[in-house]
Amino acid sequence: MTTPALIEFLDKLADSAGKAIMPHFRALDSVENKAASGFDPVTVADRASEEALRALINAHYPEHGIMGEEFDDENADAENVWILDPIDGTRAFISGLPVWGTLIGLVSGGKPALGMMAQPFTRERFAGDGSRAWYTGPDGDRALKTRSCETIEEAVLFTTTPALFKGADREAYERVESQVRLVRYGCDCYAYCMVAAGFVDAVIEVGLHPYDIVALIPVIEGAGGRVTNWEGGPATSGGRVVASGDARLHEKILATLNRSA
Amino acid sequence: MTTPALIEFLDKLADSAGKAIMPHFRALDSVENKAASGFDPVTVADRASEEALRALINAHYPEHGIMGEEFDDENADAENVWILDPIDGTRAFISGLPVWGTLIGLVSGGKPALGMMAQPFTRERFAGDGSRAWYTGPDGDRALKTRSCETIEEAVLFTTTPALFKGADREAYERVESQVRLVRYGCDCYAYCMVAAGFVDAVIEVGLHPYDIVALIPVIEGAGGRVTNWEGGPATSGGRVVASGDARLHEKILATLNRSA
Repeated sequence: MTTPALIEFLDKLADSAGKAIMPHFRALDSVENKAASGFDPVTVADRASEEALRALINAHYPEHGIMGEEFDDENADAENVWILDPIDGTRAFISGLPVWGTLIGLVSGGKPALGMMAQPFTRERFAGDGSRAWYTGPDGDRALKTRSCETIEEAVLFTTTPALFKGADREAYERVESQVRLVRYGCDCYAYCMVAAGFVDAVIEVGLHPYDIVALIPVIEGAGGRVTNWEGGPATSGGRVVASGDARLHEKILATLNRSA
Repeated sequence: MTTPALIEFLDKLADSAGKAIMPHFRALDSVENKAASGFDPVTVADRASEEALRALINAHYPEHGIMGEEFDDENADAENVWILDPIDGTRAFISGLPVWGTLIGLVSGGKPALGMMAQPFTRERFAGDGSRAWYTGPDGDRALKTRSCETIEEAVLFTTTPALFKGADREAYERVESQVRLVRYGCDCYAYCMVAAGFVDAVIEVGLHPYDIVALIPVIEGAGGRVTNWEGGPATSGGRVVASGDARLHEKILATLNRSA
């Protein structure tokens, strides 16, 4: 159920999130620590952005549900539920790097139907509805299309950091990483968008929340790629996720991840 | 010997490099492999940019020397030598990420005297002359100033990838990494600029060429930071390099790197 009105609304949401976030980017007077153990920064920007998004959704689509990173679920069993990560890549954000983004996804009848990653510093937006995907930015507006890449040996792979993979997951990940043409770490949502744009071939991650991935599924699939969990099922619940630009590569990555060592 | 004319010329060089590079960013029809072993991409953009820079320098300062990544040294024992890396972060470049940059440095009497990192996609420039440093970009023009960070435990650390450290260097690096508040991988020259801008506390790397670091030294030092090799000497020759925003942190990192395990 993606309509022109909903697609227009997506841009309105991104405008509002960007306006809430940008005064805080590179002006960090208030970084909090979310978890006592480890380093999981939440900024004032994160909360201000999610509040702005929720207010707009509640005003325009009061019957829709909302699930976000920062606040409690609202009406989570509605037919249409917005899945929000106001700042995906908070570590990049606090380091001043422009590779974080606002993730806005819409799940309709349990399936990701519409999604956007918006980067207000570079003024880029990557969006999709599962059957098509589009980009707006300083280097022009265009359709997003993944590139052809049939084998792991040819692939450019991203992951947030190999340190996130533990035990058997680490071994499985390293079976893939050891074969690729190029691996890069970091970049969170931006790396997935580069898969959609045809500059990166795959992203492999573990421990994702739904709000880390749901918005990106219609973008990558709309651009011709695939996003699944490591078993090949829906990635909507997060967890262990693979995104690929080419379905043939995707199958090879899944087979390699699931092969016994 | 940095003069207003030279500082103006630096922007002229960056304009010219950006103009040569941007038609090729995210339009990669011609990526070559520089080394038969491993993956070291050189793009048409890399060469076009360095050619443009060399032509301008030869036209305006024919008595100056030039050392660059892509072509042979010219007049390398001149009093003033330009050190050029047309695209630092080629891996980011080919992955579509906006965290590469053009590095333009001027060594005068053997010392880095003036430097700039220019990022033409985000339209950002980070420049310095060792005693001051400045930024121009979409979030406004301003002086660059490193932030206070006295201990390794408080520090945000960047490195390109831990895989670059071998043997004893790896152990030394890990002694530091294991103590920091946050470590991030990737980002090449952009990470050094975030040290100058006060959002990152340190960068530790190995195996640098002079053109990877010389342009960044006057920026970080002009912003109040320090850049040395792991022994605490000049980083002008590249190799094993530490850059820090706070001299107290810098001393602690050097001591930790050089401590026997």
